[in-house]
Amino acid sequence: MTGIDDLPVRDELRGKTPYGAPQLDVPVRLNTNENPYPLPEPLVERIAERVREAARGLNRYPDRDAVELRTELAAYLTKTGKHPVGTENVWAANGSNEVIQQLLQTFGGPGRSAIGFEPSYSMHGLIARGTGTAWISGPRNEDFTLDLAAAERAIAEHRPDVVFVTTPNNPTGNAVPPETVLALYEAAQAAKPSMVVVDEAYVEFSHGDSLLPLLEGRPNLVVSRTMSKAFGAAGLRLGYLAADPAVVDAVQLVRLPYHLSAVTQATALAALEHTDTLLGYVEQLKAERDRLVTELRAMGCEVTESDANFVQFGRFADTHAAWRKILDQGVLVRDNGVPGWLRVSAGTPKENDAFLDAVRELMGTAGDGPASPKEQSA
Amino acid sequence: MTGIDDLPVRDELRGKTPYGAPQLDVPVRLNTNENPYPLPEPLVERIAERVREAARGLNRYPDRDAVELRTELAAYLTKTGKHPVGTENVWAANGSNEVIQQLLQTFGGPGRSAIGFEPSYSMHGLIARGTGTAWISGPRNEDFTLDLAAAERAIAEHRPDVVFVTTPNNPTGNAVPPETVLALYEAAQAAKPSMVVVDEAYVEFSHGDSLLPLLEGRPNLVVSRTMSKAFGAAGLRLGYLAADPAVVDAVQLVRLPYHLSAVTQATALAALEHTDTLLGYVEQLKAERDRLVTELRAMGCEVTESDANFVQFGRFADTHAAWRKILDQGVLVRDNGVPGWLRVSAGTPKENDAFLDAVRELMGTAGDGPASPKEQSA
Repeated sequence: MTGIDDLPVRDELRGKTPYGAPQLDVPVRLNTNENPYPLPEPLVERIAERVREAARGLNRYPDRDAVELRTELAAYLTKTGKHPVGTENVWAANGSNEVIQQLLQTFGGPGRSAIGFEPSYSMHGLIARGTGTAWISGPRNEDFTLDLAAAERAIAEHRPDVVFVTTPNNPTGNAVPPETVLALYEAAQAAKPSMVVVDEAYVEFSHGDSLLPLLEGRPNLVVSRTMSKAFGAAGLRLGYLAADPAVVDAVQLVRLPYHLSAVTQATALAALEHTDTLLGYVEQLKAERDRLVTELRAMGCEVTESDANFVQFGRFADTHAAWRKILDQGVLVRDNGVPGWLRVSAGTPKENDAFLDAVRELMGTAGDGPASPKEQSA
Repeated sequence: MTGIDDLPVRDELRGKTPYGAPQLDVPVRLNTNENPYPLPEPLVERIAERVREAARGLNRYPDRDAVELRTELAAYLTKTGKHPVGTENVWAANGSNEVIQQLLQTFGGPGRSAIGFEPSYSMHGLIARGTGTAWISGPRNEDFTLDLAAAERAIAEHRPDVVFVTTPNNPTGNAVPPETVLALYEAAQAAKPSMVVVDEAYVEFSHGDSLLPLLEGRPNLVVSRTMSKAFGAAGLRLGYLAADPAVVDAVQLVRLPYHLSAVTQATALAALEHTDTLLGYVEQLKAERDRLVTELRAMGCEVTESDANFVQFGRFADTHAAWRKILDQGVLVRDNGVPGWLRVSAGTPKENDAFLDAVRELMGTAGDGPASPKEQSA
């Protein structure tokens, strides 16, 4: 039988395995930061209606520039982001992964480099490599806050072409203060100049505001967003960005023509009609997220501040054993490879109860409890 | 105002404009090889039904491996391609453009090269460049058939990592004989070995059969297909490939996780339920395509043999003027940049009548008629 290594694949792909969270069939899945609330039935009906309409013209290519969708996304950002955003500022693609891929094809690529401050969203580095962009793993503080001085040094030293700042950060959950992002932008401009991509996939769950207002007067800044989390539409694969119109023009040089299907555009437009309802679910999830933080701390866990729809908790002497013991209780959380820490997505109140019970059980178990009891309330 | 060139874009993107056929609002659009027949209403309803069902779980990520869809695509290929194809042989993505992008990320990329025999589907070269793959423009004969000896020499000289063979070829319409593809495969293996990608986007319209049976025992061969043409679903953006299971494993190393949305998968599955009806439209289009060839020749046009849903016709001393004169009659055809030639997609009988009337008008016009009357019946 032929294997991957028998094919003339690129050398750097040899021995690699595909990215992806292991999916297990368990009662409570809190491992991929999905929104636990199914779309409300009136929205489901509206999607069917809009897709039926789109299907009648499906023999034609879709709107290559997705103008109606970009207009509605701009209206949503303007309404929620405290900053006026127009159609010409917005670009959309199949998930924020494709948005990031297009940005790296435009501003990164062979002979260029990108930096992220890790642990962070691991796809930034993977997509960088997939586009031939050299990846630089920048530092973070022990408590997962961004170490500005160290970050500035790394930018000055490596002069990356693209700087990723994930806020709220995944998998740690904490937000980066606006003044830190501004300082990074200045450092990046002084070093090269380079593009700064602020990944706000989880911003709707934040205690603070979006960094959209920073776009004003900063053509090398990009804010990327997604409908996967706040809009409860992970299955839709709709990511987008807001930036100077020149950035939107530039990514059109690398986007595959007609990349966004007519059914995707129709479904996203339907969801945007129901923004208020969906943002109501976000409020419920924020309250549940805060409850997870409080209860985990009350149990003696260390918990990273969270502005996202998930919580990073620890610390465990044997992270994998802790993950497995929670799984044994029927609850799947995520081991993101941050030593000592696990990540749990905020689910429904019932799912979160099941998770908290499982951790309570775990914390009662000798040997797998927190590694450093004295640091628990950091 | 900031322009693209004020941004730190890659040098090779400076001064470029995005790919895409100009879209004009005219009565008869025969410029992008779309299927002119809207999906039948029962299929539209079935799409709405399947998407409604998918929308109920849209808060969850889609099936990352699209197993059900790949199974149904494999069944379709097995039924129509005279070769047994299993789920493990099939991979799907957002349009065949994304399939090709994934193949080039896996087998091409920086430091590697790909060849196509031009004029051919221009996206092969564009996607190669977008993935950092050097592009080699291989030759064709004057009559647009593939010049096997010259192709073999080019492969031996350049030792490309990926060889594209488009059959039926776009924009010329003619098919490449199976024995020529086999000879190219042998040449490519002798030179490197390298991957051979047979782009069969239009094969359902061919007088001959698919080259799927050639996959047997040839792990470095890939056949790429699309639902845009025969399935009348250009708006869906569903491309796929058939190959050795190792190729399917390999592209999963570069595909963006969850690249194919739940609504895309649901819509494609609905369309596959209606294969027989849709292939009925293909028969009508083949008859219309043959009529276009016959009538254009009767008018004194030179016409390239066509196995696709479009026809290349000429030759014009001033190609752009001829394109414009046809447009003045309300019919949009495509100037693909092949000097002297234009391309028309087979439309409905009424659209084709309008097109033929426009060419008849044009052929009556002094100065824009065929450049070389003696060669007309080549």
